[in-house]
Amino acid sequence: MASNICSRVLGVFFEYDTPKIVHIRSKKVGVINRFLQLCIIGYVIGYAIIFKKGYQEFDNVRGAVTTKLKGVARTDNFTSGEDFRIWDVSDYVVPPQENGAFFVTTNYIVTDGQQIATCEEDLKIPGVNCTDDPNICVKGKAIMLGNGFMTGKCIESVRHPGNKACEIEAWCPTEDGFTKAPNPAALDIARDFTVFIKNNIEFPKFGVKRRNIPKSINNQTYLQNCRFDFGNNKLCPVFKLETIVGATGDNSDFENIAVQGGVIQIIINWDCNLDYNVEDCVPEYMFRRLDSADEVVSPGYNFRYSHYYRDINGTEKRTLFKAYGIKFILTVQGTGGKFNVMPLALNIGSGLAILSVATILCDIIVLYVLKAKNLYRQKKYLEVVSDDAYKDLKEETEPNDSSIH
Amino acid sequence: MASNICSRVLGVFFEYDTPKIVHIRSKKVGVINRFLQLCIIGYVIGYAIIFKKGYQEFDNVRGAVTTKLKGVARTDNFTSGEDFRIWDVSDYVVPPQENGAFFVTTNYIVTDGQQIATCEEDLKIPGVNCTDDPNICVKGKAIMLGNGFMTGKCIESVRHPGNKACEIEAWCPTEDGFTKAPNPAALDIARDFTVFIKNNIEFPKFGVKRRNIPKSINNQTYLQNCRFDFGNNKLCPVFKLETIVGATGDNSDFENIAVQGGVIQIIINWDCNLDYNVEDCVPEYMFRRLDSADEVVSPGYNFRYSHYYRDINGTEKRTLFKAYGIKFILTVQGTGGKFNVMPLALNIGSGLAILSVATILCDIIVLYVLKAKNLYRQKKYLEVVSDDAYKDLKEETEPNDSSIH
Amino acid sequence: MASNICSRVLGVFFEYDTPKIVHIRSKKVGVINRFLQLCIIGYVIGYAIIFKKGYQEFDNVRGAVTTKLKGVARTDNFTSGEDFRIWDVSDYVVPPQENGAFFVTTNYIVTDGQQIATCEEDLKIPGVNCTDDPNICVKGKAIMLGNGFMTGKCIESVRHPGNKACEIEAWCPTEDGFTKAPNPAALDIARDFTVFIKNNIEFPKFGVKRRNIPKSINNQTYLQNCRFDFGNNKLCPVFKLETIVGATGDNSDFENIAVQGGVIQIIINWDCNLDYNVEDCVPEYMFRRLDSADEVVSPGYNFRYSHYYRDINGTEKRTLFKAYGIKFILTVQGTGGKFNVMPLALNIGSGLAILSVATILCDIIVLYVLKAKNLYRQKKYLEVVSDDAYKDLKEETEPNDSSIH
Repeated sequence: MASNICSRVLGVFFEYDTPKIVHIRSKKVGVINRFLQLCIIGYVIGYAIIFKKGYQEFDNVRGAVTTKLKGVARTDNFTSGEDFRIWDVSDYVVPPQENGAFFVTTNYIVTDGQQIATCEEDLKIPGVNCTDDPNICVKGKAIMLGNGFMTGKCIESVRHPGNKACEIEAWCPTEDGFTKAPNPAALDIARDFTVFIKNNIEFPKFGVKRRNIPKSINNQTYLQNCRFDFGNNKLCPVFKLETIVGATGDNSDFENIAVQGGVIQIIINWDCNLDYNVEDCVPEYMFRRLDSADEVVSPGYNFRYSHYYRDINGTEKRTLFKAYGIKFILTVQGTGGKFNVMPLALNIGSGLAILSVATILCDIIVLYVLKAKNLYRQKKYLEVVSDDAYKDLKEETEPNDSSIH
Repeated sequence: MASNICSRVLGVFFEYDTPKIVHIRSKKVGVINRFLQLCIIGYVIGYAIIFKKGYQEFDNVRGAVTTKLKGVARTDNFTSGEDFRIWDVSDYVVPPQENGAFFVTTNYIVTDGQQIATCEEDLKIPGVNCTDDPNICVKGKAIMLGNGFMTGKCIESVRHPGNKACEIEAWCPTEDGFTKAPNPAALDIARDFTVFIKNNIEFPKFGVKRRNIPKSINNQTYLQNCRFDFGNNKLCPVFKLETIVGATGDNSDFENIAVQGGVIQIIINWDCNLDYNVEDCVPEYMFRRLDSADEVVSPGYNFRYSHYYRDINGTEKRTLFKAYGIKFILTVQGTGGKFNVMPLALNIGSGLAILSVATILCDIIVLYVLKAKNLYRQKKYLEVVSDDAYKDLKEETEPNDSSIH
Repeated sequence: MASNICSRVLGVFFEYDTPKIVHIRSKKVGVINRFLQLCIIGYVIGYAIIFKKGYQEFDNVRGAVTTKLKGVARTDNFTSGEDFRIWDVSDYVVPPQENGAFFVTTNYIVTDGQQIATCEEDLKIPGVNCTDDPNICVKGKAIMLGNGFMTGKCIESVRHPGNKACEIEAWCPTEDGFTKAPNPAALDIARDFTVFIKNNIEFPKFGVKRRNIPKSINNQTYLQNCRFDFGNNKLCPVFKLETIVGATGDNSDFENIAVQGGVIQIIINWDCNLDYNVEDCVPEYMFRRLDSADEVVSPGYNFRYSHYYRDINGTEKRTLFKAYGIKFILTVQGTGGKFNVMPLALNIGSGLAILSVATILCDIIVLYVLKAKNLYRQKKYLEVVSDDAYKDLKEETEPNDSSIH
């Protein structure tokens, strides 16, 4: 009895199941079958394995970007009529550093010498023109789209004589809402500014570290003088802002974007085949404009910031800047691939599995379409009728198949 | 011989293999089999293809967000007793612009007129109260949790008469650690501030670009006056801060979060079925509080910054702000789907493969459970015994199966 | 006729197809077969299900990080010879808050009292030394790598007597390009600064919210005094900067990185098995240096910013800082897993499918390698020759197989 069980268990290890196959010799079906199989094999080998690099294991790139701007601008004789000013990096990059982004001022409206006091509200704001109805100035009321809190008085406008405006407590004088962004842009020369982009990346799975400065160009003289272009200098990490704007393609020339500002994405793309020389793993730069140039409401990109100071009496004052400019967003993306037996095996395995689909399709043709379908059906199927078969009517309709072969 | 090989090769193209099938007519097994198959087909068609949109190719959304705040606040008569101040955007947004985030000051503690000098250390700091032991003030020692470097002297406290504190070199006077964040918050009116969120997105794979301002609402009047709500204005891109805080659901009312500050995520969700009209691809807004309201140690969100200035003598001074407020983090997410024959084929293919699982389960029933299992086993299996079979005992136990059929 | 169709339809529900199997008893093939199957089952159960947690559904972590720095530094007697200064958080963190990052100044070069005027250009800039050729100073020309716009004059250099430099309109005096970053770093004491990292995360799919302060250590005393290390305090969320730099491993000691600055990533890794107690879901901290320490061109990390003020005459002046320091980038990553029957079923299902690969491999051995291959081939294949078979030559070469069995 024990030896019986033992032999059964052992027997399990010495046996082998394989499906019985009906081998059909037929030109029609054979050709269809092989054609389908070729399509599938072509898809698996050509597309999934070779084109999509199914023999490689992949890893996403990770990295950090830092940037350094160079360039200087001068502005004068506009908006306020007399505002001579030199702009260097610490002036036009606001805030001075960001994570994965940087902003360059290209245009501005300045309101100098503001202090907390009472003055007329900006007449551009709806609901502050009290020429006809002084009662709209309600003491203590805040105008949310405006600059301050009403005192309740309705005063003569100095800026727009003949009109009256509600008096407000605010940073006075207020920014003049009728002032438009200068055109051409005050810092239009920003087109000549350059940005040096330093990008260190890693494919952690493969332990590969790279920089966007390949060894071949890593000498100080070249780096100080080169400027990126899509030709010979496509690895130079120093970019003229005008080149970046031009490469966004979006009908964007610098002149237009400089006036109202905008948002541009700089994509650093690392698609590396690490089966080759690691020195061939170099970045590709792409540029896209992220905002749309033709917006109806508040187009472009601008924001307000202030420089605070004290006057000779110790009163807190500020210079308010409405800065228009280009916000550059830096994105590091890409994948590295390296040969690995695992994904190759999985792709071949799933390819074999998909091959059975060819058989299913051919079966349909063989069993339902071809003239000799009854012959094939007889050969392919072995009929077994159990005691509880639903056979009453079957027997009448298919008398030939009801017996057990 | 050559024609022989040739004919063999050609023969390969004109043949076709299909598994031989045992076709069993049995109510019991048939019903189980069809039921299992229906479950699998239901899963594949109903869940994987229809519900999970298995007939679509997907792409992740990419985009940029910019924000514009509006609103003005006034503060007075608190902490220092007399600090009348008007706060507009350039005052309460610190830093003036960020990438994918913005901060709104809702409360603050101000320490005015600081300059580098010697003064008493803040008695809130542990280890600086030298009332009992003047020796704890060690010249040159830095108190890392404190505000400066000890001079070695132990002086009478002016702020807390009757106590002595170590004298330090620091920005003097120091912030008073015993001052608590004002409650209600100084800028509680920030609840009425509005933020205009501009979001341009793209599904690069499908070349679809969208904005969070659909054509239907893209007129200046509507956009200037609308305010987001979850009803009729769920596409309005102008949000009252109070609405955002209220929608986080986390028992958060604005009054509480304004006092200590907090972190809130604004999710702009673009789940688009691009098989339909592209104009139906509109964003959905979601709001979540990211910090927990009930923290023991340093709850909320605050940080310190300074305004630097010079007094009449040219001495550098600064106004130190401890700003409490809400940090809003903007996240753009979502996927766009469009019909594609490839994922549909893959889903159907894998569905067919899973169908064989029904056969495996039924085989177990047929071969091991049913009474007629021996009949089925005979029909399903064709026994082949090779010369090296492990058959000595087998022949005794299963004499009927050992022959080659 | 109707009953006929009806019975056929009903018949479909009471039938069942199963492949006919050739059951081979052979020690050689059986052992190979079982060995292959064991490998596959081992892979599926051991690797895919147990090791890779194939029985779990996964979700990516989402969360927010906020940071709070503590520490104070003093600098004196360097670069300008006399610059005593106390640095607290609002001085050395620039900008005061960022999203997912923070910057700590560790070294700096200060240029005080700049105002817009005319002065000599920095002689470090190429093309401004006009000792030999005064004509290189072209009126109105901007030197993009320089500090301002040429007036056209060539003047005696005050900084470098005996040399002449082009006069420029700029923020004067310009930063001296020959000044090197102080070594040791001015704020080398930043090694003792601490940062408190608050991280709230969520696994949205499982509704699990966690913080990086487990209940076990959530008492104020411990949190105020603990410092992170990789031993007993690996959950303490307060980090000394020196510990972070040391843990990057990259031969980085604080002394070196403090001089030129650098970029360091702080990874907060939440890999949680949510089948266990949720209290065991705690973060792991990892630190990596993202820039490379040995760069040729502009190594480290630095940027420029200014403090603006007015002098007694109301002239706008500024203090220019070139700040070197460490940029810390905070990354929250990780996955949470929880038992789910769906992925388990899919893994078992695909495991069963892969089992058929064993059969394919054994078939090759049985049909092409073994001596008894002709016997097996006869048993496995049922030959069917259709009328349109390509059989002319076949019949001659394989006469035994051409009949229908």
